[in-house]
Amino acid sequence: MTLSLPLGSTIGIIGGGQLGRMLSVAASRLGFQCHIFEPGAEPPAGQVAQRVTTAAYDDESALRAFGNAVDLITYEFENIPTAALDLLQDLAPIHPGREALRVSQDRLTEKTFLQQLGLKTAPFADITDAASLEMALAEIGTPSILKTRRFGYDGKGQARITAPEDAAQALADMQGAPSILEGFVDFSHEVSVIAARGLDGAVAAFDPGENVHSDGILRTTTVPARLSASQRTDAVLIAAQVANALNYVGVLGVELFVTPGGLIVNEIAPRVHNSGHWTQNGCAVDQFEQHIRAITGWPLGDGQRHADVVMENLIGDDMERVPDLAKTPDCALHLYGKAETKPGRKMGHVNHVKRA
Amino acid sequence: MTLSLPLGSTIGIIGGGQLGRMLSVAASRLGFQCHIFEPGAEPPAGQVAQRVTTAAYDDESALRAFGNAVDLITYEFENIPTAALDLLQDLAPIHPGREALRVSQDRLTEKTFLQQLGLKTAPFADITDAASLEMALAEIGTPSILKTRRFGYDGKGQARITAPEDAAQALADMQGAPSILEGFVDFSHEVSVIAARGLDGAVAAFDPGENVHSDGILRTTTVPARLSASQRTDAVLIAAQVANALNYVGVLGVELFVTPGGLIVNEIAPRVHNSGHWTQNGCAVDQFEQHIRAITGWPLGDGQRHADVVMENLIGDDMERVPDLAKTPDCALHLYGKAETKPGRKMGHVNHVKRA
Repeated sequence: MTLSLPLGSTIGIIGGGQLGRMLSVAASRLGFQCHIFEPGAEPPAGQVAQRVTTAAYDDESALRAFGNAVDLITYEFENIPTAALDLLQDLAPIHPGREALRVSQDRLTEKTFLQQLGLKTAPFADITDAASLEMALAEIGTPSILKTRRFGYDGKGQARITAPEDAAQALADMQGAPSILEGFVDFSHEVSVIAARGLDGAVAAFDPGENVHSDGILRTTTVPARLSASQRTDAVLIAAQVANALNYVGVLGVELFVTPGGLIVNEIAPRVHNSGHWTQNGCAVDQFEQHIRAITGWPLGDGQRHADVVMENLIGDDMERVPDLAKTPDCALHLYGKAETKPGRKMGHVNHVKRA
Repeated sequence: MTLSLPLGSTIGIIGGGQLGRMLSVAASRLGFQCHIFEPGAEPPAGQVAQRVTTAAYDDESALRAFGNAVDLITYEFENIPTAALDLLQDLAPIHPGREALRVSQDRLTEKTFLQQLGLKTAPFADITDAASLEMALAEIGTPSILKTRRFGYDGKGQARITAPEDAAQALADMQGAPSILEGFVDFSHEVSVIAARGLDGAVAAFDPGENVHSDGILRTTTVPARLSASQRTDAVLIAAQVANALNYVGVLGVELFVTPGGLIVNEIAPRVHNSGHWTQNGCAVDQFEQHIRAITGWPLGDGQRHADVVMENLIGDDMERVPDLAKTPDCALHLYGKAETKPGRKMGHVNHVKRA
């Protein structure tokens, strides 16, 4: 057996935030070098990468130079402009592929895709105007939530509708963007599965983590999650089904609502995922290395867990807790090297590690 | 409580090998940036550092620019030319300090220092010529080993003397370098303690690891080591005593022989140590982060271990085993990104991780 991409090869990473940063560190552990492409100055990933290109996503000559300088391309976020991908795909392989991006970039496409796989989702409807919203509310009811189809993350681009009279304001909040109305799901808790699919089609998943959000932002992930054995199996099978259906290569995150009637898919993310950060201190191969393994043709880690972990995000002023966390036993800190602390900004995370 | 060195500060690391590389990654996890100073081209540490200076250790202007660009200086190896340190120490704090380097750079000084602390060492004698070697052999006997006082590592600069008639050849092998004769110690196994001492004098140690060498190079470290509870306590106390006596700041490695008569100190290393690589997958705070914490004034990690680990070095052709190791459960690979595989060259290591 040989490894597909030679050691010392350069992996191009689109996006220079914390996910790109941790991907770069993981790639280095396997002997690869990384080249970050990021429009913003001084990206966190650049501090631990071999090379950084600072240029806009529509800078064709910079994209071309980047594509020619790397052996393989991946990314840390799903909203990469299509034109940039069109240009890059002729210069180096891109993993995960276009289909995963196409599906996950649009909430309506994603929900439709999931339903076609026979998976359960929240009830949803395509919203184009006040009339379609009125019809959808009549069917789905309230409370429900109006979301832009594209470019939403961490609770952005969302408006809650608690009663029909909120409809007009919610629609105005979308600022004319194509939207989707989603019904509320009565769930006891949310879990996520971080799964990986290799170039050879092999699939591996980490233990599901249990997620707590606040203000639309992930706060903690706890492993093991509260799941029965059959729920755990279902969760992993759903993630594998999604990965296979997308002919996916890389790590993906699948968020699931736990309900008395079974697991309901909330959303999928075609990338390493905040709810998988616990793997850095709980597994021999973490989600970042797993992603690099998948896209470079290495064998996947088996996802086995040697410790229990509670991952806690450090958001905005949470950074003031760092001195205390540094003194707390079992705390593994992962700070992102961001120059400025802002409210709602993910500045780092801490893994509380316990013997399993 | 505040942290001494502000987040975002730059740590200068002298030496760009694998230890500098892993220090750089650990520093980034705490929000620091790293600047590597290394004479060799394309140093492994440079792939994961913010900045690299490629210059000789006697390039005064390069040293000056480096010293002015960083907030704090540390190093990955103990044989830094004195003149370079003389220049740098006026530009930024250097940790660990000069005393630790002075003691550990010279085997005779080191052994004398250890004896003055009341610690046991192998019998030894200062060798300056054939006459002093003959006298020393009469006292220490054979088998014994002649070593250069300075610049020895991984078994280099050593000649074994199995009978008095080997003396002349052994002395010739030293090529005129000041040397030390060491008697053999009848030990059952070797262990090492990775300890840290902070700016405030606090000391913490990881569990001792059990080391196996071959051809003078470390092959494996196993944790937990075969030690009784009192031996484990003795080992940690010896390391703490050494650190305190040197007024040490940072991580140091202390190698110990286990004998029926107690623990005998083999040598000390004023830096992160190969036998501490297991901590990367067994502890919330590994030895690299512990070193960064110590020199930046952070609180030390408590050294607690959440998993059992066997660390195995990948030396030279061991790299051919990487594809198989990548498929083996519980294997955490750490490759160093070195361009060329050479016999005897440390190319990476693998931590075999088990639930404790």
